[in-house]
Amino acid sequence: MKKQISDKVINRLTLYHCILQDFISKGNEYISSGQIAGLLKIDDSQVRKDINLLNNSGKSRVGYIVKELKKSIETTLGFEKNKRAYIIGAGNLGMALAKYDNFSNYGLNIICLFDNDETKIGKEVNNKKILDIKELPVYLWQHYIDIAILTVPAQYAQTTADFLVKTGIKYIWNFTPAVLNVPDNVQVWNENLMGNFLQFTYDLN
Amino acid sequence: MKKQISDKVINRLTLYHCILQDFISKGNEYISSGQIAGLLKIDDSQVRKDINLLNNSGKSRVGYIVKELKKSIETTLGFEKNKRAYIIGAGNLGMALAKYDNFSNYGLNIICLFDNDETKIGKEVNNKKILDIKELPVYLWQHYIDIAILTVPAQYAQTTADFLVKTGIKYIWNFTPAVLNVPDNVQVWNENLMGNFLQFTYDLN
Repeated sequence: MKKQISDKVINRLTLYHCILQDFISKGNEYISSGQIAGLLKIDDSQVRKDINLLNNSGKSRVGYIVKELKKSIETTLGFEKNKRAYIIGAGNLGMALAKYDNFSNYGLNIICLFDNDETKIGKEVNNKKILDIKELPVYLWQHYIDIAILTVPAQYAQTTADFLVKTGIKYIWNFTPAVLNVPDNVQVWNENLMGNFLQFTYDLN
Repeated sequence: MKKQISDKVINRLTLYHCILQDFISKGNEYISSGQIAGLLKIDDSQVRKDINLLNNSGKSRVGYIVKELKKSIETTLGFEKNKRAYIIGAGNLGMALAKYDNFSNYGLNIICLFDNDETKIGKEVNNKKILDIKELPVYLWQHYIDIAILTVPAQYAQTTADFLVKTGIKYIWNFTPAVLNVPDNVQVWNENLMGNFLQFTYDLN
């Protein structure tokens, strides 16, 4: 399927969504593009342009209707599409992600974790079981899962990815600082924390 | 200071850096732009253009000299510049970040954590002390710290940011799903995990 909305716009829309959630929790009914732009320190016209891409009808003279705009973003970005994932690597980061309940608001459901550490296997974290990595191929015959969230130590990233590819995974969300070599039909998103950080601090003296 | 290198290029350069580290650990001396491009599934000419921005002289007929190219990226992106940070919120994510030793390779040194939970205060995680958030203003008189890494629950994000702004912080790396309202002289990087995820899975059926 062809993307109709650019990555940059998707990124901004999720930030607008955070702002709208906050406005709702404070009981605000309306929001202007200027308020959104001011919080994100971006241009008002940019916000209006982004919102025009949505199928949003909730516009009044006093601003956008917060609840309707939020719903429009959710529909456009497919929050209601259920995406199933498992975590590979029940270390610090894997555990932190497993405990992060906010994901399900965006349609991301983390079903379970896999690890090879016998002291962890069988335990639960946030109602998600930690399973033996050896059981993964059999598990995937029985459960349809879209996304593997990779949080193993960097030195095991490639061998783990090779293993995942053999199980037929199509999406890997890579939290390791390793670049993975995978076939063209497998999509990898490198969650490049350090790249983000270095952009942010590039002009820091 | 004006940025001479765009955010997108910085992001790619850090990925090249990951690849180079991997090549070094495997004992490879040379790398071609095509090898980098192949791993990242981007255009060869893009890689060459990015590398031309660096002050890199280590080019031979068989490819770039891995160690020199790595050093060029480190110099250009300021890995040797020491950046000091503290973590606000010693929850799951804060703890995971505190335990992540890879940061120091990029010049980011996490000095300590702050929390208001008395059962956590005084403990240590990865040789970093968890201090009482009330001590933060006094601590900052005695220690120069550039960056606050914000990992509190979303509902406390804004009040915590207000508190940080009063202490004079200039950089906030925001891991919460809240958009912060801060003065213009404070820079915020929104580590928008869900925005990234939704970009990645936008075409997932």
